[in-house]
Amino acid sequence: MSFAVNFADIQSAAKRIADRIHRTPVLRCAHLDALANRQLHFKCENFQRTGSFKFRGACNAVMSLTNDEARNGVVTHSSGNHAQALALAAKMRGITAYVVMPTDSARTKCAAVEGYGGQIIYCEPTLVARETTAREVLDRTRGTFIPPYDHPMVIAGQGTIALELLEQVQSQFHTLDAIIVPLGGGGLISGIAIAARALQPDIRIIGAEPETVCDAAKSKRLGARQPATGAVTIADGLRTALGDLTWPVVRDIVDSVVTVSESEIKSALRLVYERMKLVIEPSSAVGVAAAMGPLRDRKDFQSAGVILCGGNIDLDSLSSLVKASR
Amino acid sequence: MSFAVNFADIQSAAKRIADRIHRTPVLRCAHLDALANRQLHFKCENFQRTGSFKFRGACNAVMSLTNDEARNGVVTHSSGNHAQALALAAKMRGITAYVVMPTDSARTKCAAVEGYGGQIIYCEPTLVARETTAREVLDRTRGTFIPPYDHPMVIAGQGTIALELLEQVQSQFHTLDAIIVPLGGGGLISGIAIAARALQPDIRIIGAEPETVCDAAKSKRLGARQPATGAVTIADGLRTALGDLTWPVVRDIVDSVVTVSESEIKSALRLVYERMKLVIEPSSAVGVAAAMGPLRDRKDFQSAGVILCGGNIDLDSLSSLVKASR
Repeated sequence: MSFAVNFADIQSAAKRIADRIHRTPVLRCAHLDALANRQLHFKCENFQRTGSFKFRGACNAVMSLTNDEARNGVVTHSSGNHAQALALAAKMRGITAYVVMPTDSARTKCAAVEGYGGQIIYCEPTLVARETTAREVLDRTRGTFIPPYDHPMVIAGQGTIALELLEQVQSQFHTLDAIIVPLGGGGLISGIAIAARALQPDIRIIGAEPETVCDAAKSKRLGARQPATGAVTIADGLRTALGDLTWPVVRDIVDSVVTVSESEIKSALRLVYERMKLVIEPSSAVGVAAAMGPLRDRKDFQSAGVILCGGNIDLDSLSSLVKASR
Repeated sequence: MSFAVNFADIQSAAKRIADRIHRTPVLRCAHLDALANRQLHFKCENFQRTGSFKFRGACNAVMSLTNDEARNGVVTHSSGNHAQALALAAKMRGITAYVVMPTDSARTKCAAVEGYGGQIIYCEPTLVARETTAREVLDRTRGTFIPPYDHPMVIAGQGTIALELLEQVQSQFHTLDAIIVPLGGGGLISGIAIAARALQPDIRIIGAEPETVCDAAKSKRLGARQPATGAVTIADGLRTALGDLTWPVVRDIVDSVVTVSESEIKSALRLVYERMKLVIEPSSAVGVAAAMGPLRDRKDFQSAGVILCGGNIDLDSLSSLVKASR
């Protein structure tokens, strides 16, 4: 098997970004272990810089650029965590991040991008407008486009999570039989699968998806990549479909993709708040919900890592989602 | 100086409870460092079993009992974190915890005590009723009374936080010049002061108190122990006054006690939620608020530990407190 990224790329990424990222802690919770019927090790990327794992990939991509490539800055279109991540990575490199965002983006997200020094270019809230505007910005600035997931350096950056997680769990004298990963565009699970399989070939890599946007589960089942369902989910980071680089990885070395309902996601959000005292966004709760729901009775693995991929949710939204879970 | 607890007691406590408590992580936050104008190391006792540091002291007290003493169970009166902590510690020992709670206690707190196997005895919501009822329960059960803070084994248990914190910060190749500790009855700060001073005699130990219930600050200033002010604060864990065992420690080896306003506490709650993705209760926010407010310009120490003492707050309450801080 040959993918766009190999283990050596992930090891290089780890060296490249080591001093710029947080080595996030791995936490345990006896109550959630009981509900999931196995030992869980939670990798807290909600504590990562900019509040999500996206900073690893963005940082690796930006730091990999030659000085010539970097000079004119970097460009992306995103209304989510990748925008903030790219803005901070660019700031660290001393270059400009141009972020195309739809006019209906949440004000807090725009403020975060600007807070990290990013330059926002607003566009109409359609995919066509986003792409057209991004192309205009690229032409004007001659910057480098950094997409949110379908990019070798981005995938390699996300893979560094698995290097840390396996090392941290081992240093606690535990072993990991599986890693449960929220799945949207597939950048996170691809990096993790490539890294973890290299270190521990028999490890299970399991994707977790909201059932309303189950394109990856369907793609696996049919053996053919499916487009985004276009449906909505509270786990807004997971609405995207698999990419050209991530689909082969999901097809070939991800063991399975399970789905959870919106109400399971809300219950998991509430449990993590109440029992772990952690703020996570709904996308993170998808992995937790999978561990307690569809994966609870799986006998083919004992312990599992669960990636808490991000924590960017304002308190009002969290409060109303959790209320709705009662 | 001779206090009710010495360093050896705290070392014994650490051994006694090691397998039963969580060794809680120490987290950093660049944004809060900037606001506090120094390096802060947050000790996350909000992740401790039962959601607060109280489990350390309760566990040490319960595990120190002889079999004869333990046989008839343990008794306390508390509507707060000590109740849950004692219930779980007793459950681990296989004995009963009898907890006297006022009839107007929050339903979630009663549920938590019962969830850990504690037996609740309800009483009228007055101090007299609590004490009378506790005495009746003691007479009836012949159990052992374990108060929330003014008890050598409880203080020794809380002191184990300082052993861990200093070791954890050193293992990160940093040093600590001070520890900032929320101050109510003084059990937490007494244990920490005794342990930290033994390991590092020049360390600053600083108490943080809501200005509405500033009996400890006033006691320090006047050199004489003051009664509880009787006022209210959102940091409900800090309303109690100093005890017979904790006052001498606060008087002699706590460097200073600073106070913060209710609005500073709310802002700190919000910042820790938004920037650290942590759920903390208002008492924990008092230490954070002190670091950013009254201690910000202190030149006599550089880095500081901040004890996040607990995380027991329901999402509705957190949400409305944080709304009020805008």
